[in-house]
Amino acid sequence: MDNPFFINKGPFKISKILSLLDASNDIVKDNIDINDITDLMSAKENDITFFHSKKYNEIAKKTKASFCITTSNLKAELAETCKPIVVNNVLVATAKLTEKFYPNSVNDFFDDTCSIINETKFKDKIKYGKNVLVGNNVSVGANCTIGHNTIIEQNVSIGDNCSIGSNVILKNVIIKENVKILDSSVIGKHGFGFFPNNTKNLRYPHIGLVIIEENCEIGCGSTIDRGSMSNTVIGKNTFLDNQIHIAHNVKIGENSIIAGQVGIAGSTIIGRNVKIGGQAGISGHLKIGNNVDIAGGSGVIKDIPDNSKVMGYPAKSLREFLRENR
Amino acid sequence: MDNPFFINKGPFKISKILSLLDASNDIVKDNIDINDITDLMSAKENDITFFHSKKYNEIAKKTKASFCITTSNLKAELAETCKPIVVNNVLVATAKLTEKFYPNSVNDFFDDTCSIINETKFKDKIKYGKNVLVGNNVSVGANCTIGHNTIIEQNVSIGDNCSIGSNVILKNVIIKENVKILDSSVIGKHGFGFFPNNTKNLRYPHIGLVIIEENCEIGCGSTIDRGSMSNTVIGKNTFLDNQIHIAHNVKIGENSIIAGQVGIAGSTIIGRNVKIGGQAGISGHLKIGNNVDIAGGSGVIKDIPDNSKVMGYPAKSLREFLRENR
Amino acid sequence: MDNPFFINKGPFKISKILSLLDASNDIVKDNIDINDITDLMSAKENDITFFHSKKYNEIAKKTKASFCITTSNLKAELAETCKPIVVNNVLVATAKLTEKFYPNSVNDFFDDTCSIINETKFKDKIKYGKNVLVGNNVSVGANCTIGHNTIIEQNVSIGDNCSIGSNVILKNVIIKENVKILDSSVIGKHGFGFFPNNTKNLRYPHIGLVIIEENCEIGCGSTIDRGSMSNTVIGKNTFLDNQIHIAHNVKIGENSIIAGQVGIAGSTIIGRNVKIGGQAGISGHLKIGNNVDIAGGSGVIKDIPDNSKVMGYPAKSLREFLRENR
Repeated sequence: MDNPFFINKGPFKISKILSLLDASNDIVKDNIDINDITDLMSAKENDITFFHSKKYNEIAKKTKASFCITTSNLKAELAETCKPIVVNNVLVATAKLTEKFYPNSVNDFFDDTCSIINETKFKDKIKYGKNVLVGNNVSVGANCTIGHNTIIEQNVSIGDNCSIGSNVILKNVIIKENVKILDSSVIGKHGFGFFPNNTKNLRYPHIGLVIIEENCEIGCGSTIDRGSMSNTVIGKNTFLDNQIHIAHNVKIGENSIIAGQVGIAGSTIIGRNVKIGGQAGISGHLKIGNNVDIAGGSGVIKDIPDNSKVMGYPAKSLREFLRENR
Repeated sequence: MDNPFFINKGPFKISKILSLLDASNDIVKDNIDINDITDLMSAKENDITFFHSKKYNEIAKKTKASFCITTSNLKAELAETCKPIVVNNVLVATAKLTEKFYPNSVNDFFDDTCSIINETKFKDKIKYGKNVLVGNNVSVGANCTIGHNTIIEQNVSIGDNCSIGSNVILKNVIIKENVKILDSSVIGKHGFGFFPNNTKNLRYPHIGLVIIEENCEIGCGSTIDRGSMSNTVIGKNTFLDNQIHIAHNVKIGENSIIAGQVGIAGSTIIGRNVKIGGQAGISGHLKIGNNVDIAGGSGVIKDIPDNSKVMGYPAKSLREFLRENR
Repeated sequence: MDNPFFINKGPFKISKILSLLDASNDIVKDNIDINDITDLMSAKENDITFFHSKKYNEIAKKTKASFCITTSNLKAELAETCKPIVVNNVLVATAKLTEKFYPNSVNDFFDDTCSIINETKFKDKIKYGKNVLVGNNVSVGANCTIGHNTIIEQNVSIGDNCSIGSNVILKNVIIKENVKILDSSVIGKHGFGFFPNNTKNLRYPHIGLVIIEENCEIGCGSTIDRGSMSNTVIGKNTFLDNQIHIAHNVKIGENSIIAGQVGIAGSTIIGRNVKIGGQAGISGHLKIGNNVDIAGGSGVIKDIPDNSKVMGYPAKSLREFLRENR
């Protein structure tokens, strides 16, 4: 994965990887270098991948990865060129190995490369407030403004004509042209993803980014978490009001309008031209179609087809909801 | 409108205004100066106003404005002294012209007049923390305290005996005596008002303020947006808990109590002695009476008369809700 | 109470206390020193306590306090060694007297003992960002990191291996080992507790702390209020997502998982291994058992026994909810 934020520390010898995963060494003939860990579809020769659910059978048959972390039940489905590494818990093993390749994707310590902006190359190039901090290798386009006390961590990229408010924190995010990020938002921290464990939970590495497309507005006090394996994406010309929470891997289409205090749980995909009323909540791993209207306060717990209007908790057809609640 | 925050850049010649709105020039005999744009009721001779719904027919008949942005259906209702300017979309045209009169009411860039407080006249006058920033023409009363990293933008006025927390952002707000604003609140940004447009939404100018009356408390991480044409008002001795969102043009009466994470949508008017439980949401453009109790978690979607107790989503009589949910 | 944050300004003569409470002086023979004000159970000889509800009859019979603020109806239940002080409103009188003993527990002004961290003893001991502020008598363990612009007020204690984000505000909190506090959280302000009053509400003193046990994570933009008489506690290895609000006196057991935008009202006690879905709300003064699952968006308004799964508003058995909402 070509990713400016999380540097791949590989390659690692397959023998080292097997030992890290407490897996049998029998499968290895040549102690080859493994270049990267990624999903079944993206993996190339000399990469390692993972396969934990039969719903990916078809993709598993075609993966180009040389190795795959999987279970004894699933291993028969893999492409012939891909050797299975059988473990008890595929996702835990994958997290462990992802952290090996991308060690800085877990802990989210503050960015110690940050300098006061007037000691950087931006000094005379953009308009900024007091106490603005920027990390290494940040890029900021033409005609941007950056408010007081804002922190822009390393490798963040901001397009032309953007306006970033005060007290904002940006990390692991790519912001396109003409975007407004309002005061006190926090964008790009890792998602709320971990394996519960009775004495010390195991955090999941998050190597995805946040991508905010052209012409968006993100309201005050909002939080947008970066993705774990994929990215969190806010589509073009989509406006978010204040105090919204967007979890990891969520993708929102263009021209959508999301009112205050809405929350969208992890990995949900939302279409374009979607309107979501204030305080509505959307569960994780759902698919919301295009041109959908979700009334304020709704709780959405299943997929919604294109062109629907819904309301209620759980959300149902608006017409049905209003009839039942006359 | 006498408004310290948004400076009227007028007057403008009526010919220039007609050209900006792509309207016919036929109606003009004298190319007079137009002083201001405001609502039907407040407008004076040589002002321009707007009229987009027949529910304002009675006021339209009496407006003193010299010109009015309206539709061909409505124009006959106007006072004889008021010349109609017919456009396709009254609100879009009004937004465009309001931006012409008040150009700094749309973009909310950070306040570049801010200085570190110990380089200002406040140096020895009030008690303040580290890194406090104040803009031009700020006024702060006697016996106030201002926490670390707080930003007070230009023209903000704070009464006597107020305590402002740390990491607070204040803009376009008038704060009366004995108010507490707790940490990390953001007060006075523009509301979430714009005209959706498929490639680039058109932001609505917000020339209203936030007014926070005597003895109020505003909790941590809350956001209160300023009004578009009118003000957002928090009445005397009203207390707001943490993480509350108050949208533009909302008015809350005195002695009200609003618990954590409540959200109130735009232009809703709330009476006095109102109690709102945690996480309740109230839709926009509603009227909530005096002495109303709204239970936590409720979703209010219609007006509520004085002295009612409601609960549920949609909110109904508390008695009925409890009977149905035994 | 042995409390580094709120210093007991006592002892005070009982005659002074009676006069403050507008209570009759008749009951005093010796004008003794009163050392402290605390609850019926914790009070010792020469302390004063309060008793306002018959549900505490059994404890009242055994209190060791020398004096008790109570009503004429309840006073007969008190231990013989404890003299009643009869008032109209027990809680208001208790608040008034608590403020006398602990005057800095009411107003939460910013901490004016804070210095820039690189002018303190922490300069070469821990890793920190720009503009970090620390108050008097703060302690920070080994191997901690503290992000930019973060404020750590006086007497706060942080254990080893903690990571504190940027723009965080910590006050009146004890943080154990290996805890992560993410960006823009505000921890330890007073709770939303006061006596409504038609011209000026009377704030309740909050002399409790926040205690965050080992291995916890607190998400971005969350607020955790300190307790009034008791503490607010987050149990070991409990993870909170972004934008969560935890009110005063709440106690959460270990190994719990709380998703984004959840709100928990004052004095509710939550067991261990509890999972709470996004945007759920829990009313105050409830008891939630161990191993409870509360679905996202639920509104919990009564106690929940161990090992239950609930959903809905008001929350009911998950099975029942799903059957009714097919």
